[in-house]
Amino acid sequence: MAAIATSFSAAAAAVARRRSPARIQLVARRRLPFCTAASAAPAAAAGFSWADALRVASDTGVGDESDLSGYFHKVDICNRGLDKKGQFVEFLVEDQVVGYIHKGFTEHLRDFHDVFTIVSGHNGNSTVGHVTLHPSLRTPEDRTLAIGDVIKGLGELIPGIRNELYPVTSSYGMPVYFSLERAAAPYFGIKAYGVHMNGYIEKDGEKSLWIAKRSDVKQTYPGMLDHLVAGGLPYGISCKENIIKECEEEAGITRSMSTNATSVGAVSYMDIDGFRYKRDVLFCYDLRLPVDFVPNNEDGEVDSFRLVPVSHVANIIRRTNFFKANCNLVIIDFLFHHGYVDPDSNGYLKLLTSLRGGDCS
Amino acid sequence: MAAIATSFSAAAAAVARRRSPARIQLVARRRLPFCTAASAAPAAAAGFSWADALRVASDTGVGDESDLSGYFHKVDICNRGLDKKGQFVEFLVEDQVVGYIHKGFTEHLRDFHDVFTIVSGHNGNSTVGHVTLHPSLRTPEDRTLAIGDVIKGLGELIPGIRNELYPVTSSYGMPVYFSLERAAAPYFGIKAYGVHMNGYIEKDGEKSLWIAKRSDVKQTYPGMLDHLVAGGLPYGISCKENIIKECEEEAGITRSMSTNATSVGAVSYMDIDGFRYKRDVLFCYDLRLPVDFVPNNEDGEVDSFRLVPVSHVANIIRRTNFFKANCNLVIIDFLFHHGYVDPDSNGYLKLLTSLRGGDCS
Repeated sequence: MAAIATSFSAAAAAVARRRSPARIQLVARRRLPFCTAASAAPAAAAGFSWADALRVASDTGVGDESDLSGYFHKVDICNRGLDKKGQFVEFLVEDQVVGYIHKGFTEHLRDFHDVFTIVSGHNGNSTVGHVTLHPSLRTPEDRTLAIGDVIKGLGELIPGIRNELYPVTSSYGMPVYFSLERAAAPYFGIKAYGVHMNGYIEKDGEKSLWIAKRSDVKQTYPGMLDHLVAGGLPYGISCKENIIKECEEEAGITRSMSTNATSVGAVSYMDIDGFRYKRDVLFCYDLRLPVDFVPNNEDGEVDSFRLVPVSHVANIIRRTNFFKANCNLVIIDFLFHHGYVDPDSNGYLKLLTSLRGGDCS
Repeated sequence: MAAIATSFSAAAAAVARRRSPARIQLVARRRLPFCTAASAAPAAAAGFSWADALRVASDTGVGDESDLSGYFHKVDICNRGLDKKGQFVEFLVEDQVVGYIHKGFTEHLRDFHDVFTIVSGHNGNSTVGHVTLHPSLRTPEDRTLAIGDVIKGLGELIPGIRNELYPVTSSYGMPVYFSLERAAAPYFGIKAYGVHMNGYIEKDGEKSLWIAKRSDVKQTYPGMLDHLVAGGLPYGISCKENIIKECEEEAGITRSMSTNATSVGAVSYMDIDGFRYKRDVLFCYDLRLPVDFVPNNEDGEVDSFRLVPVSHVANIIRRTNFFKANCNLVIIDFLFHHGYVDPDSNGYLKLLTSLRGGDCS
């Protein structure tokens, strides 16, 4: 611990030199030994501060390391409402299932009959059988434009437009039928792909993860804990190129470093909430960083970073909801392949397999 | 390469000092640069020699690294006959499914009506519905003894008796209903658990795996390539203790070293072949070894070891059937979490999920 605390202080000092004055105060708090409770600073938008997180992280007086229930709870949070799957119908393009649409949401698509074809149930009754695209939309470009217009037309029904396009496909690497606004992906139940990277250091045999706290003014999940680097996978970019790009933007990691990021597998989940059916697949990466590395956010989406021993990160995950929900899965995956979960713990195999509870294809 | 070849030569010399004279000749061949084709030595029981394996491993003139078909083929070899699942019936103990028994095999159990109860199909016709134990067998000890006697009584119907007991349970960590002779496990379709360890070194940023070649006189899979350490998980021993025990017996790895073995997950497969229904779950471990470490088999089950660059091991797996079938899965899992499989390769997610094609519980 002492060794890492020392390296942390050096890191904090380096951050302080780079940050704008408005951030100096927050950075200054980091000079405290980073695993002890810090000052009673005002809680962030998410309702907690770094001090709260680190207090929970380092409390050795609670719980049992072999109790996996806190991890199971986080997996459950990412996989809600599967009993409501019957409320959705298939969304077919070129006879391939590319998504699932809530029957209630299909009613909003009926007005756009030159874009969507709502096919009745096989008995010809009024229930919806499936949704497909109008046959006049033959090329990916035509479809992308037409559906983009529909999404604009739906207004506040699909909030939080990102102006970022996701490829629509039956499974990763297969033909892309069209591209869809990121915020609309769960309304059409298309699979969305992302890349998440655990950046860590190893010193004296102990591993620590660099953790980000999202900006309080970020549109989604403000103030929550996050990976060092993560992002959706837009159309037309490989996983590796995306990781390299996000490393630069989100943490100031140069290409010469990020090219060493190691793919380590994938997690998946499926989450139903109202009209929204999220089907996400996250490609997981590890990057071992130099012990003196200090992240530097360049896109304004991160408030601050901290270097936290892996066992303490595990405590935050087990004991709180401080992490953005899907980050929990990727960090639990990290805990598995770095040996932080004991195979003889009750539920080891169930937890391991639950990390791919969604359609991982 | 040069650096590793040097360490290999030192390792080979050390092995030579320890080995019996009968093995010196084989060891001497290792002094050749270990990735080039060696002399035309006689093929082993498995039909190939180290020279054959290393020739395939180092051939850079064939194939494409992003072509995963060779890996898929190895997964398929471990998962045969799933279309024949309908030929099996459930084996229930205390109302829990603990296994699956071939309908034809149940005919051989009918004579032992004080041990097995063959329950007819729900229509009361002559077809078998399921198999359970006679209600008089109330304790695990009673059941273990009674079923052990049946297995002796069946004689050559269950060949290759190992005199090693496996726990019978619905899933790992759940109550053990009885213990069963290892060789009989697939005839009762019980889940069998094992521990497999990839022992590797890292030098100048390149990883190499220590690979074993099984003894030509070993009862199962003679002469085939194998992990540095692997073993079934007998009744009453934890995964970690089993790894430590097997490390000592199979590779001469001391407890002070093997205690650093890292659990990294699990693979599973289900394979039907005649009356046999294998349902195996393998807990996977990594152990990073000192670069000057030399394995030393102490139980006579290994012919010899070689240190092979991971990329060359990958070639052996993709291009040959030289590895004992289930080792392929554990090494492919290693390739995934060490970044040797590119997420943008066609079939990445399918291959990843196929590594747990069996009931992983």
